Amino acid sequence: MRDISLTSPIPLHHISIRDSFWSPYLALIRDVVVPYQWEALNDRIAGTEPSHAMKNYKIVAGLEQGDFYGMVFQDSDVAKWLEAASYLLALAPDAELETIADDVIAIIAKAQQADGYLNTYFTLKEPAGRWTNLAECHELYCAGHLIEAAVAYHDATGKSRILDVACRLADCIDETFGSEDGKIKGYDGHQEIELALVKLYRATGNDRYLRLAKFFLDERGRQPHFYDIEYALRDGRTHFPMLRMAKDKSYSQAHVPIREQQSAEGHAVRAVYMCTGMAAVAAETGDAELLAACRKLWESMVTRRMYITGALGSMAYGEAFSLDYDLPGDTAYAETCASIGLIFFAGRMLQIEARGEYADVLERALYNTVIGGMSRDGKHFFYVNPLEVWPEAIGKNANYDHVKIQRQPWFGCACCPPNIARLLASLGSYIYTHNDDCLYAHLYIGGEASVKLSGHDIRVIQRSEFPWEGSTRIEFQMEQPTTFTLALRIPGWAEKADVFINGIPYLLDDTETVDGYASIRREWNTGDSVQLVLPMSIKQMKGNPLIRDTAGKVALQRGPIVYCLEEADNGGQLHQLYIPENSSGFSSHHPELLDGISMIEMPALRLNGDQWGNQLYSARVKEQLERTTARFIPYYAWANRGIGEMRVWVNQQRIYPEEAMR
Amino acid sequence: MRDISLTSPIPLHHISIRDSFWSPYLALIRDVVVPYQWEALNDRIAGTEPSHAMKNYKIVAGLEQGDFYGMVFQDSDVAKWLEAASYLLALAPDAELETIADDVIAIIAKAQQADGYLNTYFTLKEPAGRWTNLAECHELYCAGHLIEAAVAYHDATGKSRILDVACRLADCIDETFGSEDGKIKGYDGHQEIELALVKLYRATGNDRYLRLAKFFLDERGRQPHFYDIEYALRDGRTHFPMLRMAKDKSYSQAHVPIREQQSAEGHAVRAVYMCTGMAAVAAETGDAELLAACRKLWESMVTRRMYITGALGSMAYGEAFSLDYDLPGDTAYAETCASIGLIFFAGRMLQIEARGEYADVLERALYNTVIGGMSRDGKHFFYVNPLEVWPEAIGKNANYDHVKIQRQPWFGCACCPPNIARLLASLGSYIYTHNDDCLYAHLYIGGEASVKLSGHDIRVIQRSEFPWEGSTRIEFQMEQPTTFTLALRIPGWAEKADVFINGIPYLLDDTETVDGYASIRREWNTGDSVQLVLPMSIKQMKGNPLIRDTAGKVALQRGPIVYCLEEADNGGQLHQLYIPENSSGFSSHHPELLDGISMIEMPALRLNGDQWGNQLYSARVKEQLERTTARFIPYYAWANRGIGEMRVWVNQQRIYPEEAMR
Repeated sequence: MRDISLTSPIPLHHISIRDSFWSPYLALIRDVVVPYQWEALNDRIAGTEPSHAMKNYKIVAGLEQGDFYGMVFQDSDVAKWLEAASYLLALAPDAELETIADDVIAIIAKAQQADGYLNTYFTLKEPAGRWTNLAECHELYCAGHLIEAAVAYHDATGKSRILDVACRLADCIDETFGSEDGKIKGYDGHQEIELALVKLYRATGNDRYLRLAKFFLDERGRQPHFYDIEYALRDGRTHFPMLRMAKDKSYSQAHVPIREQQSAEGHAVRAVYMCTGMAAVAAETGDAELLAACRKLWESMVTRRMYITGALGSMAYGEAFSLDYDLPGDTAYAETCASIGLIFFAGRMLQIEARGEYADVLERALYNTVIGGMSRDGKHFFYVNPLEVWPEAIGKNANYDHVKIQRQPWFGCACCPPNIARLLASLGSYIYTHNDDCLYAHLYIGGEASVKLSGHDIRVIQRSEFPWEGSTRIEFQMEQPTTFTLALRIPGWAEKADVFINGIPYLLDDTETVDGYASIRREWNTGDSVQLVLPMSIKQMKGNPLIRDTAGKVALQRGPIVYCLEEADNGGQLHQLYIPENSSGFSSHHPELLDGISMIEMPALRLNGDQWGNQLYSARVKEQLERTTARFIPYYAWANRGIGEMRVWVNQQRIYPEEAMR
Repeated sequence: MRDISLTSPIPLHHISIRDSFWSPYLALIRDVVVPYQWEALNDRIAGTEPSHAMKNYKIVAGLEQGDFYGMVFQDSDVAKWLEAASYLLALAPDAELETIADDVIAIIAKAQQADGYLNTYFTLKEPAGRWTNLAECHELYCAGHLIEAAVAYHDATGKSRILDVACRLADCIDETFGSEDGKIKGYDGHQEIELALVKLYRATGNDRYLRLAKFFLDERGRQPHFYDIEYALRDGRTHFPMLRMAKDKSYSQAHVPIREQQSAEGHAVRAVYMCTGMAAVAAETGDAELLAACRKLWESMVTRRMYITGALGSMAYGEAFSLDYDLPGDTAYAETCASIGLIFFAGRMLQIEARGEYADVLERALYNTVIGGMSRDGKHFFYVNPLEVWPEAIGKNANYDHVKIQRQPWFGCACCPPNIARLLASLGSYIYTHNDDCLYAHLYIGGEASVKLSGHDIRVIQRSEFPWEGSTRIEFQMEQPTTFTLALRIPGWAEKADVFINGIPYLLDDTETVDGYASIRREWNTGDSVQLVLPMSIKQMKGNPLIRDTAGKVALQRGPIVYCLEEADNGGQLHQLYIPENSSGFSSHHPELLDGISMIEMPALRLNGDQWGNQLYSARVKEQLERTTARFIPYYAWANRGIGEMRVWVNQQRIYPEEAMR
C-alpha cells in the first residue's frame, strides 16, 4: 500500500488557539457546551426531549433498571460527546472532565457484550435482531462513532481502556462482515464506520481495520443488492416506514457502486461521511480510482449542490440532495451535521492534495452554517439552517414543517449539537497541515503550533484579525535557521494578496501561487514573520445562472462571512428590498452587537406597496421605490434577537436605462 | 323567509352556445368527455387506475358479485357524471345518452336501502359504520352529489325517478341529523350536502331540505366539537391516518362556527363548496349575517389567497390554503376542483349581488385553471395546476411529488375530470342572470337565450369574438317593443369600454356604470343590438407587493387570458428570461396552433451564463444579457407539446438608470 497523503494535520496537543474570534467559541465548548450536553445526555435539562442515552448504557451495563428509549442511534450521542471531551483534554488538562470521561468509559466497557458487540438498542430491544437491518438501524454507524471517540480519547490521554473496547468491537465486526464465506456481505445504511476504521488503523497499525473499511466501501451498491437480500431475510420488517430506506437505494448512496457514482445523492450527512471514508481509504491505500471517485463527488456537491452558506441538502424529505442547481433557500434542509461532514471531507481531501477549493469550502461551511448552528449561549442549536425564513408561514405552510425559527435546547434526534462540539473542539487540527519540509496554512486563526519541519522543531505563532479584517501574521521560532516552505492559502474570495516578510513587501511570482496556495521557500530564522493582507471588500455575490432560486438576487459576502438581512434591522417584508447593482456599502464593527460582529450597511430601495389596497394583481399600480439603507449581519448570527424574517439572497436592482431596448 | 336573490340564471334548456371558442368545448364534452368518462366509470379504459364506481353500485344493487373498491367517495364520480349528462340532455335531446342515464338511475335506485340510505362504501364495507365517521368518510358529500345529479336530471328530462331516490335519501338524512333529541348533531367533513339540499328545496319546494342545509352550516365548528365526540364514540378509528382530518378542524373549515370565520382555511375545495352552500342558504332565507360571512370569506380568498390563474390552494399537504399572500407557483396545489368550486361560489354570489368582482374571478378561474385542467382531446386531466414547472425536478425534489407535468388519463381519486364535465356542460347558465326587468350579461360567450323580461319573451342573440378579440354584439328579438335594462359587465381588466347601440356610439355616464356593470335601460325593439368593444391590450401584471413569489416578476394577461412561457417556444431555463418594464409585445392569432390561440411575442432579455463554467457563486462574472423575443401562450394550453418547462411569473427588468441612486 502506498500512502498518497501529501500532508498530515498537527495533533491537537501541539496546537493552541488564541484568537479574538475563535477563543470565545473554544471557551464556550469547554465551559458550557460539553458540560451542558453531559447534562442533556443524562436527562437533566428541564423542558427538553429526554436523551436517555447514558441511561441506555447503564441499563445494558447492569447498573440501572429500565427499557431502552430513543432513536436506534442514540448511543452515538454519547460517543460524539466523549470525542468532543477528548479533544478538550488534548488541548488542556481537565481532571474533572477526565474523571467523568473515565466513568463513561467504564460504563461503556461494562455494556460491551462478551463477543465484543456493543449497541444498547439491539441488546435491549432486539437481541435476536443484531445485524438484520443494516439499511435502517445504524449498528455500524454507532460503532464508528464509538471508535472515533476511542481513538480521540487515547490520543488525548494515552489511556487504552476505551481503545481496547473499540478494538474488540471492531474485531467483532470484522468477524461478522467481509467477503469470506459465512460472513455478511453488507454495509451500514449510514456511513461512518468506514472513516472510523481508518482512524483505528492509524491508532493501532492493525491493517485489518483498513481492509474492513475498504470492504464496506466497495461492497456498497453492488448487485445483487444487499438491502434487498436482508429485507427479504427479515420478511420486510421495516424500522422507519416513512422513508423507504431499504428500497430507495440512493437515500444511502447505495444505488450504484461508489466508484461509479457521478453525483452526490440522497441523505446529505451520509454522503459526506461516506466521502470522508473514501478519501481516508484512498489516502492510506494509494487507490487512485477511489480518489477520482472522491473528486467526482466533491465536484458534484460543491459546484452544483451546495448553498452559499456551505450547507447541503435541498429538501426535507430524506434530508437529502435533490438535483443539480436546485437550491431553494426557504425549504432548504441544510443540516448542521451535513456541513460538519463537508468539513471532514474537505479536510481529508486537503491532506491528499493542497487545493484551495477544499479550504474555501471548509471555511465557507465553518464560518456560516456550522457556527450558525449554535447560539452564542452554547445551549441552543439549529438542525436545519434555511437561507430564508418567513416566520408567519411556519406552521401554516407544511412545506416549512422542518424549519425552526429559533435555536432549540435539544432534539429527539440530537445528532447536531454534539457534532458541533466535537468539530469546534478539534478546530485547531484544521488550521495547518504539513509534510517533511512544508507547512500549509489553511485557516487564518490565531494561536500557536509546534511542528517538525526539515528535521527541526518549529514554533508557529499566528496572529489573525480574521474574519473581520484581512491581516494575518505568522511568526516562526526555532533553535536554528531552517529551510522549509510556507504555503499560504490565498482564499478564492480574495481579489489579491499582499505578502510582507519581516515587514518588507514580498512579490509573489506566478510560479509560487499554485492551486490557491502561495509557496514561500527559504531559510527561516527565529523571529521571522510573514504577514498576509487580504482585501475585505464587500461583494455582491451572484448564483450560477442555472440556479432558479438566486435569479435576480445577490448575497453579500465579506471575507469568508456570508451576510443576511434580518427583520430586527430592516423591518419585515424583506422581499421588498432591492440592492442596486452599483450600490457599495460599508462595513463597521460593533463589538457590543451579537458578541461582536461587523455589520454591512448598503444603500437600497424598498418597494412601497401603500397604493395596492385590496388588489391582489394589477397592471395599473405604479411601482414606488423608496431609498433606504439595508443593514446586513453575518448569517451565522441570525435568530438571536427574537423571531423575525431573515434572508440571505436579496433582490438585486440591475442598472437598466430606459433606452436600452431601443 | 325573504328571498334576497337579485337575479336568477336562465335555465339550460333556454340557452344554446354558438361560439368559436366555447362550442368546440361543448362538442368535446358531448362527443368525447362524457362518453370517455362513462367508459372510465365502467373500468374500460386500458392502462389507467380502475374506477369501479359503477361496479360498486351494481354489487349493492345485487346485479353483480364482488367487493367494494375505490375511495370512500367513489359514488360521487357516478353522480357527477350523471349531472354532466343531464346538462347535455337539457341542451339537446340525445336518446342514446338518456337510455344510459336511465339505466344508471335504475341501478342507483336498486342500490338504495329500504330506509332511503344510499352509499356503496358503507353498505358493502362497514354496514354497521353508517354515520360514525362524518369527519372523514364523505357520506353526506356523496349524498349531496347524488341530489345535485337528481335535480339536474329532473330539470333536463322531467323524469322523477332519480328525484324520488334523492328525496328518500334526503329524508333519511333529515331523520338522522338535526337539533332534535335523538338526532345526530353533526355535519360532513367535506361540504357539498348543503348546496345540494338547497337545489332539492328549489326543485321540490320542500323547505325541510332548506332547514337541513342551514342546520349543517350552523352546526359546523360549534363546541363541544362534533368531530371530537364522534372520534371518541368510534374509539379513535381513523380512515385517513396521514391527514388528521378529525383533529385538524380547520382542514374542513370546522375550527370555529362559519359565521365567525375570518379567513379561508384548510382544504380549498371544501371551503368553496361550503361558501356556495352558505350563499345559497343566504339567498333563500335572507340571512344577512350569513351573507356577510360569505363576503368575508370571498374577500379572504380572492384578495389574499388566489393565484392569478384563479387557482386556490397553496400547498399539497391538506390540498389547502396556507396563509395570506403565500402563493408559491411551483409547489402550488391549485386543484382543478377548487377553481370549479370558486366558480360555483362566484356564480351564486352574482345572483345575490351583481358585482363585477364575482364575474371577474369566475372568468379568471374559467379561462385559465378550469380549461387548463383538461387536454384538448378531452381524455387527459390535471388535478394540480402549478404556475411554474421544472420537469427535471419532478421525482427528484419531493416538494413536487404532487405535480404531474402531463395531463393524466384518470386518477385513483378522480374528482376533477367529471367536475370539469359538469361545469362546462352547464356553462350556458353562467352567461346571464336576470330579474323581472333586467338582464345581466356576465360572460361574453356567443349563442342564444330566451328569457322573460317585463312580461315579454325576449330572444337574446350574442355574437362574441372573445377571448381573442374584444368585441361582442348582443341582439334582441321580441314580439313587441319592451322596456328593460341590459346590464353589461365591464371586466375589471378593461381600461375602458366602448358601447354602440344599433351601431351608434353610446356614451355611458357615470351613474350607469355601477360595481362593474353598465346598465342601459330603454325600450328595446326587435333587431336592436348593443355592441361592446373592450381593448385587448397586453398587460404586464404585477402581484401585490406582499406576495413573495411574484416579487420582481410579471405575468402577461390579455383580456381574461393569463399567459405563460413554455420551453417549446423559448428553450429551457425560463428563469433566465427578463421582460423589460417598457417592453410592449404584440399578439397574433394562430388558428393552427393548440386548436387556435393568440400568442404574445415580446422583446426580452436572456441571461447568458456561458462565462460561469464550474463556478456556483461568484462576484466576478460580468452578467451578459442578450436580446431575444419571449413567446407566450395562454396558460390553459400548456403541456400539450411534450414535456418542458413552464412559468407564468417571469422576471421583470425594471427601468433603472445608473445615476438613480446618486
